[in-house]
Amino acid sequence: MSTLTTLRLDGELLIQQLRELGEIGSDPEAGGRTRIALTDDERAGRDLVVKWMHELDLDVRIDRIGNIFGTLRADADDGTQRPLMMGSHIDTVKNAGALDGCYGVMAGLAVVRAFRRAGIKPQRSITIGAFTNEEGVRYQPDLMGSLVHAGGLEVETALDTLGIDGTRLGDELARIGYAGDLEPGAIVPHEYLELHIEQGPVLDAESTRIGVVENLQGISWQQITVQGNANHAGTTPTSLRHDAGWVAAAVAVFLRELAVSTGTTLATIGMLRIEPNVINVIPRKAVFTVDLRAPDEGRLQDAERRLVEFLAQVEEREGVKVTTERLVRFEPVVFDAGLANAIEACAERMGLSHRRMTSGAGHDAQMIARIAPAAMIFVPSRGGISHNPREHTDDDQLIDGAQVLLDVVVGRLAAS
Amino acid sequence: MSTLTTLRLDGELLIQQLRELGEIGSDPEAGGRTRIALTDDERAGRDLVVKWMHELDLDVRIDRIGNIFGTLRADADDGTQRPLMMGSHIDTVKNAGALDGCYGVMAGLAVVRAFRRAGIKPQRSITIGAFTNEEGVRYQPDLMGSLVHAGGLEVETALDTLGIDGTRLGDELARIGYAGDLEPGAIVPHEYLELHIEQGPVLDAESTRIGVVENLQGISWQQITVQGNANHAGTTPTSLRHDAGWVAAAVAVFLRELAVSTGTTLATIGMLRIEPNVINVIPRKAVFTVDLRAPDEGRLQDAERRLVEFLAQVEEREGVKVTTERLVRFEPVVFDAGLANAIEACAERMGLSHRRMTSGAGHDAQMIARIAPAAMIFVPSRGGISHNPREHTDDDQLIDGAQVLLDVVVGRLAAS
Repeated sequence: MSTLTTLRLDGELLIQQLRELGEIGSDPEAGGRTRIALTDDERAGRDLVVKWMHELDLDVRIDRIGNIFGTLRADADDGTQRPLMMGSHIDTVKNAGALDGCYGVMAGLAVVRAFRRAGIKPQRSITIGAFTNEEGVRYQPDLMGSLVHAGGLEVETALDTLGIDGTRLGDELARIGYAGDLEPGAIVPHEYLELHIEQGPVLDAESTRIGVVENLQGISWQQITVQGNANHAGTTPTSLRHDAGWVAAAVAVFLRELAVSTGTTLATIGMLRIEPNVINVIPRKAVFTVDLRAPDEGRLQDAERRLVEFLAQVEEREGVKVTTERLVRFEPVVFDAGLANAIEACAERMGLSHRRMTSGAGHDAQMIARIAPAAMIFVPSRGGISHNPREHTDDDQLIDGAQVLLDVVVGRLAAS
Repeated sequence: MSTLTTLRLDGELLIQQLRELGEIGSDPEAGGRTRIALTDDERAGRDLVVKWMHELDLDVRIDRIGNIFGTLRADADDGTQRPLMMGSHIDTVKNAGALDGCYGVMAGLAVVRAFRRAGIKPQRSITIGAFTNEEGVRYQPDLMGSLVHAGGLEVETALDTLGIDGTRLGDELARIGYAGDLEPGAIVPHEYLELHIEQGPVLDAESTRIGVVENLQGISWQQITVQGNANHAGTTPTSLRHDAGWVAAAVAVFLRELAVSTGTTLATIGMLRIEPNVINVIPRKAVFTVDLRAPDEGRLQDAERRLVEFLAQVEEREGVKVTTERLVRFEPVVFDAGLANAIEACAERMGLSHRRMTSGAGHDAQMIARIAPAAMIFVPSRGGISHNPREHTDDDQLIDGAQVLLDVVVGRLAAS
């Protein structure tokens, strides 16, 4: 069986469905759309996806955390077979683009549609998953639905989560009618594929069509507080200064050098404030965050260790007090090599330029990777922009990505 | 004539008067005292100083900008003689110490008192000046009274200054009863001496008793805005970043290296904010101030030029847009060498440790230096702290400074 001969992807309908889903929660004035998890707008998005699943005559199941699964059942599946799963999410951040998450779910529908239209039943059941609360805007943690699905968080704990608006997640889930009865984790994938926009600038900058995502960066977030002395900028010789602001700057410069020297480690100081923040007063205090990322746990630990050493040196040399608070720490995720190879081979066969890459952002695939072989396919994001109304990928690039997904699915079904 | 034999400084009364003046405007809860120029509390301070001048039977004159002059007239003075002037100011910042400015005025009273008590008339008239609005808290510019006195600002312009509270300076001056009739600049000093606390840490750190202030730093204040791009901290490779926050940090590190390499130039980034200031977003924008100071105009210009070059390089390399706004620029002031030598010789003769130094802060002496030979004497500030309730100089250090002032005055009178 070959996709080229018997299975045809309806790219036009894929784009149309992305637009249609993108209308829900749209805000013409502020731009973009807002479908924060378990709000009325997100319910409307869920209803549309479920309607489309039913139109494809899928077996639709909702689990207790609200994850939606639509399955095209193989003839051989007596209900115990592990399906090939494609998934992502349809909740959004505030004033989001139309593609983040939704693209992976809609492309899954397009793949299944190709089977339905060809009248072909897959050798193994195919499931499309739409996971609850990937963005984590209203309820923490993010990636919640896939985390619960993978057994990393008790469903009762997740349901008891209180949102930034004071609501209880379980109550909101019931309110919108998506508190299902399927036990989370009941559907264990045989393999998991997630097609997603890159949300970074690499593919766009290189004019590469397909990213073969072989791993996902580990993340280390710290908040660093430097306590120095506030002194007069005009009367305090450099040698007698305890300049907390300068220490923060020195850390930023050190981290840039570290990032450049490693090639793959990323380091960002995104938040910074100094006190008293007066033009002619040497800063007494600096509070800033350090965001370190690396595709390899050893490298991430190395960056953390080198930062600790640098802070100790500068604390001694500058006569300041440095305290560090860990905010977030996730180990890197290595995706399944066989799936990555398959993605790469499909892109190559289809004549699409491709490259191996690391996902810089978090995705549901990193949670599912705990319980099944998983990998991701990226398509370019123009300018690397995402979480923004200006998020954009050209239609033909979106269709290319879905074609690769279909081709990989067909290949995996044939191999299994 | 020698101060050691015939003129005795009443150190105890000097300390007592400093305490008494320091009570006016005091705030036991917040600490310190607040006598912002031309407020009711500052009027009470002026009234006390004028009362003390009258007790010493001085000729008290108030000029149109409110500067107070108390003169002990020489027998030979027919009213045309240029007096030896000692001066400073008695206005304060918010929650100030008791010494900044007041010490110079009170020590002037102590010097004149020594003459009065010894029944000696000076060979040249001695004038104590208390200049209006040195601190510039309510009305800009600071150093206003001495600036007007030196002819650097028209008195009408100064009187029309609107304060941060919307008041007109001339109205407030009349309200508190200090709109005098003396034409500003009428009393041109033969020489000018200003005794002041260092407001910096050098003398205290070195345990040196007397600072011989031979010059006053030039000041260059700029505000720099860096416009980069906000991108995702996890998905944007280092090479594709346009990190405005990193540029600000690189400038801070560059300026520190510049300061260290020159030895005398000071550089401070006192204010800094970044946008959007989110932990996982590369800063789009950074706005910060640069405070450069140097005792020599050539060096100050060199620092400014090197900063411009660095900014141009980093703008090119980092792909950001840098704009610079000049906020303040004062050339350095070189004090009179003869007066500095005389101060040094007196300190040496009195067995007090001393050093040549540069004033990092602005003082009335820098304005008076435009119209007469001027120099300053510094005494230690504990920990370099000033403009703060914790401002402190030991009583014996204050008395030492006043003794040096008296000794220099006696020597200059003998020489003139």
